[in-house]
Amino acid sequence: MSNKKNILVAGPYSKADLGELPGLANLYWLSEMSRAELEAALPSIDCIFVHFWPKELDTEAMKKMTSLSFIQSGLAGVNHVPFRDLSNGVVVSSNAGGYSDEVGEFAWALLLAAAKGVVSAQVRHREPGYGSAPLELGKRVVVLKGKVLGILGYGGIGKSVARVGAALGMKVMALSRKSMQHDGVESAIGEGGLRKILKESDAVVLGLPLNNLTRKMIGREELAIMKPNAILVNVARGEIVEQQSLYEHLRRNEGFVYATDVWWTKDGKECYPPELPFFELKNFIGTPHVSGPSAVVGGGPLANALANVTRYARGEKVLNIVDRADYL
Amino acid sequence: MSNKKNILVAGPYSKADLGELPGLANLYWLSEMSRAELEAALPSIDCIFVHFWPKELDTEAMKKMTSLSFIQSGLAGVNHVPFRDLSNGVVVSSNAGGYSDEVGEFAWALLLAAAKGVVSAQVRHREPGYGSAPLELGKRVVVLKGKVLGILGYGGIGKSVARVGAALGMKVMALSRKSMQHDGVESAIGEGGLRKILKESDAVVLGLPLNNLTRKMIGREELAIMKPNAILVNVARGEIVEQQSLYEHLRRNEGFVYATDVWWTKDGKECYPPELPFFELKNFIGTPHVSGPSAVVGGGPLANALANVTRYARGEKVLNIVDRADYL
Repeated sequence: MSNKKNILVAGPYSKADLGELPGLANLYWLSEMSRAELEAALPSIDCIFVHFWPKELDTEAMKKMTSLSFIQSGLAGVNHVPFRDLSNGVVVSSNAGGYSDEVGEFAWALLLAAAKGVVSAQVRHREPGYGSAPLELGKRVVVLKGKVLGILGYGGIGKSVARVGAALGMKVMALSRKSMQHDGVESAIGEGGLRKILKESDAVVLGLPLNNLTRKMIGREELAIMKPNAILVNVARGEIVEQQSLYEHLRRNEGFVYATDVWWTKDGKECYPPELPFFELKNFIGTPHVSGPSAVVGGGPLANALANVTRYARGEKVLNIVDRADYL
Repeated sequence: MSNKKNILVAGPYSKADLGELPGLANLYWLSEMSRAELEAALPSIDCIFVHFWPKELDTEAMKKMTSLSFIQSGLAGVNHVPFRDLSNGVVVSSNAGGYSDEVGEFAWALLLAAAKGVVSAQVRHREPGYGSAPLELGKRVVVLKGKVLGILGYGGIGKSVARVGAALGMKVMALSRKSMQHDGVESAIGEGGLRKILKESDAVVLGLPLNNLTRKMIGREELAIMKPNAILVNVARGEIVEQQSLYEHLRRNEGFVYATDVWWTKDGKECYPPELPFFELKNFIGTPHVSGPSAVVGGGPLANALANVTRYARGEKVLNIVDRADYL
C-alpha cells in the first residue's frame, strides 16, 4: 500500500499547474468524479486543495472525511472554508500573499480613478449639457502627494500598497496587529489605532482578511470618523464594510468616494451587482472582483499555495496556518 | 525714476500668489487694464509672466513691446508662446517640473484605469445583458508587475512616473536626450531608442514638451511598432500623437488602449471633446485636461515659475530657459 497522501483537488487547476505534486501524491480531481466516486473516496482523503469551496463538500460530505488533516486555499482568504464542519485537528492554510501585488495594483487603480475623476469623466461626457463639466471635474481632482494614506491590514497587500504610496510622496499609516516601523510606514494598533487612521487619512485602503475581527469593521460610526471627502478603497472582502451604513453615508456625503472590487455576499455567494443601487451614485466606483485575474491559470499567485501542498505531501511543515478561532 | 522691472502679469494669479514679487517690481495686471492702458504700457514692459498666451498680446501688440526681454510661462509647456513674434533677445522660460508630480499621478490614474478595466466596468454595468461581463472583464485585466514601462521624455514628469513604475515592480525604460542610468531606469536615445521603447513596452507614457521635435512624433508607423495590446498614456500634449492615425489604429486593434488627459488643438485652442468620435471606442479613455488642478491657485506648481520671475526682478540669472530653435 502506498503511503502517499490522498489529495482532493477542488479548484480550476490543471495538471500542468501543479508542478511535481502529481508525482508525490494520489490526486483526486473533484471535477472529474461522479457523486458515487466522491462518496467512496471521502473517507480516505487526507487533504483538500481548494480554490473556492464547492457545494459538493457540504456538511454531510465533511462528516465522512475522517482522514482529513489539511486544507489549502488557493484564494488568498479562507473565509469560504466551512470551519464549523471541521474537527479541531484539521489545519487550514491561506494563500496569504499569493495575490498581494496584483491586488495592490488594483487598489491603486481604484484609488487613483477616484482621486482623479477618471470614471466620472467617462460617464459625464456621455451626458447632455456636458459643456461645463470639464471645469467642475478639474475642481474635484485630488492631488495625493503630501496627503495621508491609511492602510487597514499590513500583510502582503498592505505592504504592496504602501510601497506605491511612498513613491507618490504620501504619508503612510497602517493598522497592524503588532506595532512596527517599516520603510517609513507608521503603524497603529488596536481600536485607538483604527480611529486615528480613519480620522487622519485622506484615503483608506482595506487589505484585511475577512474573519470575526473584521466583519462589519467599518460601519456607521467608523464612516462618521472619516474625512467627509475621503476615499475608501476595498480590495479585501465586501463584508468588512456594513452595506446599509455605507449606502447612507455615500448619499449624505457627495465628496466621499467608495471604490471597490469586492462585494457583499448573498446565500454564501458574492453578489454582483449589489442589492442596493450603489451604481446610481456618482461617488461610487465598482469592478466585478477582477483584481486577481491570473488566479485560475496557476503561475505566480498559485505558487505559494502549491508549495504548501507540496510540503504537506512530503510530510514537511506547512506555512500560513490560520487561527480557526478568528473564523468560528 | 525707479529701476524696478515692469512685469505684465497675464495669468489667473492673485497678489497673494506672488510672494515678494509685488515689492520687487512694477506689476501690470492684464485683466485689469483697458485696451488703451495696455497700448500705453507695452513699450515699457520688460517681462511677461503668462499662464496661457492671451489674445490681447497678438503680433501687433508684440511689435510694440520694444523693452521685452523675458517671458516666464506658468504652464509647464511653452508651446503657447508665439515664438515667431519674438526677437532673438527675448528669453523664454518654461515652468518645467512645476506640475510633475501631479501630472505623474494623473498618468498612473489613466494607465491603471486602462490596465485594470476600471472604466469599462463602470460603463458596462449600465448596459443591458451585463451578466457575462465580469468574466470577460477579468480576462482583460493586465498585471503590471514584471512588465515593461516606456517613458518618452525623462524630465520632471518622466521621473515622477518612473518612481511609481519601479514601486510596482515594472522594468522602466526612458527616452532621453542624453544617455543616462538613474534609479534603475534604462535610458534610450535617438530614433533607435524610440523604436526600442515602442517595441518592447507594455505601457508607454508621453511626458514630452510639444515642440518641433515632438509634434506628431507618434504616427501610423510608430503605432505599428507597438505591441497590439499596449497601453499608450498621454499627459503631455495632444499634438504629439497624430490624431487620424491613432483613431484608425484604435479601430483596428481592440486590445490597444489610448488613455489621455490632453487633446488636439483647433484654431489654437485645445479641442474637447475631440473632432473624431474617440469616445465611441471602448479602448479609449479621456479626461478633460485636469491633471494640474491646482494650477491657477498658485502654491506648489507655480512656485518654480514665481521663483524664476523673482530672480529676474532682482537681476539674477533665470533658469529653465528653452531653446527657441525647438519651437520655431
